[in-house]
Amino acid sequence: MSHRVLTGITTTGTLHLGNYVGAIRPAIAASRASGVESFFFMADFHALIKCDDPDRLAHSSRSIAATWIAAGLDTDRVTLYRQSDIPEIPELTWLLTCVTAKGQMNRAHAYKAAVDAATAAGEEPDAHVSMGLFSYPVLMAADILMFNAHKVPVGKDQVQHIEMARDVAQRFNHLFGRGQELFVLPEAVVDAEMELLPGLDGRKMSKSYDNVIPLFEGGAQALKDAIARVVTDSKLPGEPKDPEGQTLVTLYDAFATPEQRAAFRAALRAGLGWGEAKQQLVALIDGQIGPMRARYAELMAHPEQLEAILQAGAVKARAIAVPFLKTLREACGLRPYTATASTAAAKAEKVAQPVFKQYREADGKFYFKLLSADGTLLLQSHAFEQGRDAGQWVARLKREGWVADAPVQREASEADVAAALAAFQEA
Amino acid sequence: MSHRVLTGITTTGTLHLGNYVGAIRPAIAASRASGVESFFFMADFHALIKCDDPDRLAHSSRSIAATWIAAGLDTDRVTLYRQSDIPEIPELTWLLTCVTAKGQMNRAHAYKAAVDAATAAGEEPDAHVSMGLFSYPVLMAADILMFNAHKVPVGKDQVQHIEMARDVAQRFNHLFGRGQELFVLPEAVVDAEMELLPGLDGRKMSKSYDNVIPLFEGGAQALKDAIARVVTDSKLPGEPKDPEGQTLVTLYDAFATPEQRAAFRAALRAGLGWGEAKQQLVALIDGQIGPMRARYAELMAHPEQLEAILQAGAVKARAIAVPFLKTLREACGLRPYTATASTAAAKAEKVAQPVFKQYREADGKFYFKLLSADGTLLLQSHAFEQGRDAGQWVARLKREGWVADAPVQREASEADVAAALAAFQEA
Repeated sequence: MSHRVLTGITTTGTLHLGNYVGAIRPAIAASRASGVESFFFMADFHALIKCDDPDRLAHSSRSIAATWIAAGLDTDRVTLYRQSDIPEIPELTWLLTCVTAKGQMNRAHAYKAAVDAATAAGEEPDAHVSMGLFSYPVLMAADILMFNAHKVPVGKDQVQHIEMARDVAQRFNHLFGRGQELFVLPEAVVDAEMELLPGLDGRKMSKSYDNVIPLFEGGAQALKDAIARVVTDSKLPGEPKDPEGQTLVTLYDAFATPEQRAAFRAALRAGLGWGEAKQQLVALIDGQIGPMRARYAELMAHPEQLEAILQAGAVKARAIAVPFLKTLREACGLRPYTATASTAAAKAEKVAQPVFKQYREADGKFYFKLLSADGTLLLQSHAFEQGRDAGQWVARLKREGWVADAPVQREASEADVAAALAAFQEA
Repeated sequence: MSHRVLTGITTTGTLHLGNYVGAIRPAIAASRASGVESFFFMADFHALIKCDDPDRLAHSSRSIAATWIAAGLDTDRVTLYRQSDIPEIPELTWLLTCVTAKGQMNRAHAYKAAVDAATAAGEEPDAHVSMGLFSYPVLMAADILMFNAHKVPVGKDQVQHIEMARDVAQRFNHLFGRGQELFVLPEAVVDAEMELLPGLDGRKMSKSYDNVIPLFEGGAQALKDAIARVVTDSKLPGEPKDPEGQTLVTLYDAFATPEQRAAFRAALRAGLGWGEAKQQLVALIDGQIGPMRARYAELMAHPEQLEAILQAGAVKARAIAVPFLKTLREACGLRPYTATASTAAAKAEKVAQPVFKQYREADGKFYFKLLSADGTLLLQSHAFEQGRDAGQWVARLKREGWVADAPVQREASEADVAAALAAFQEA
């Protein structure tokens, strides 16, 4: 069975080469694994906690979304959406707020760090703490639980928040689940081997050190200019050089095959000049980044394309969030007045529902099938070149019920198919 | 100019005669004043803070909505909705959470009371505090600011929360308003003369004292049985009685005209027996409550009628909330990628928009008109018997643009009307 992986993307600032190597590239690679259903979201509700410059927030979200897509995120395969396009997330946040103990938030690292800083400066402990900072672990729990993500790749500093999300999920399940697990308990995945790219001066690449190599900004020239500033030793061309511990070599390694790495080291030992070595590094990086940069420029020049991609992602995400929130609301008593307690309870106890499954086969094509509540195959789709087209047919069948010319093989009577599809219209 | 008054209705428990006299009756009377646009909402998101019994929460919301409508709340005239039917409210809650200082929540009375109780019991200060309890003033601010209410009638213990809503509104205006007042600063209205009905034993009527007179539950018989238990002195029929300070007389006063009050006192002084006096009291109350009880029973027997009323209310409320939240999101940077910073700023600075006004005339009929951005009359509707019908035409014109057979008098060229209506479709 596939499992769901959820990754939040901070939408402040712009990205540099270190972000690409350390975060974007591995996350995109992981999203291509089989058996994985990946969710990526632009965390703009989170960005509001830190950023009160509206234009900067808007620009940053747009630029970072374009960066991820240009870097190869396959939005047919994964679900990429803006957090703020999913109104179910703040609504779930409130439901979870009601079952979260304040004591747990008191112990959150980010909050405690702010309190320690204020206390050290002789100020009131909460002097610089907004309710956004204090309660953001609840929003983060809603981000994760809304899609019942199994795995959440995070840095070490975020592990505590995943544990908080588990606690909140358990408490909600206990209070309102009537013996069912409404929420999956998410697990943190900490990538111990996350690649940390050095900056120009060999320290960790970071804007605060002013040692950053840009990713797309400024084009190939900016990349070349930055690499020219990488600190080396002062050996002249022709002198043998020790490649180990050289920032330039670490940067080269991040983009090279094992063979290229060995050849680069051998050339330096044989006297390759630093100037020439830097040209090779620029060529290596630009060979990979260059095509992405062109796609990035295209997306930034055509915001309507980018917007369409994000809106399609929101449709996919809400296809999950809307019915799930309905179940959660009903479980905690927010029901239409026409729902009597007994039917609501019966509905909550009814485990099985018909289900659509979307997937990709080894042939690279996209498919979906409809299974009945007891797992019988009802519909099997033909192959689609684009995952989007499969998704649109699923959405249409859910919305309109049985469509005679749907591109599917019917495996059960028309009445059975129509009955199963009717369940989605009630939902 | 009309001003907006917003009243939240707690959706836990059931209501008694004291709630009717102290809260429901005066609020309904106030909603009938001219120049007032009243909003009433079932505060079910708030109820979740205190109630983890889903069936009780659902039943209570339904029963209390039926009570208010049966008691005479005119849902054509006011806007009555369930808080949980307005997804814009939790979303606005998050926007406000990001601009609320935690220090302010630390000082909230309800939170401090919980901390004091825990400390007195030798427990951790936050032992029994959920994040729902701690952050509910932010939700309350969203309730109020979502509709830019001018006045919020509250008990004394809630005045602090209205002040917090003002502070949050000011901070949001300052950070994101670009010189405009996005939010009206709400004012608390404390009704010093709020009538407190005594219970059977003369103390304040309260479930915790077990001295409650039911409002609708149990029918006329339950009312009669409760009144029979009202404590009196032991004077016999025929003996002169001092009416002052008698619970029975205070109860009578709450439903009587000045003439009836004087006559009742005179009769007691002349020797009216307590048994007979109680029968008169039952007759007086039941003359007013009886017809409401029948309407209540009908609404409880036909939840689909009640549900339809609440859903119509949600449509009215969201006609305000949806476009306003869009403005607020844009102001703080949550914008489509196709909105450039400059157009967003320009839009935020464009003050005037065409506007529909709905109102009721002295003839008791309902009307609407469409005014252009500069206040010119564009459309004047015919009279409607039902406010709902006027509202549906407004909604349709906003959605579909100019409709040739709309029941209106056109006061400008068709092109001007069409242009003004187009503004609603962009919004």
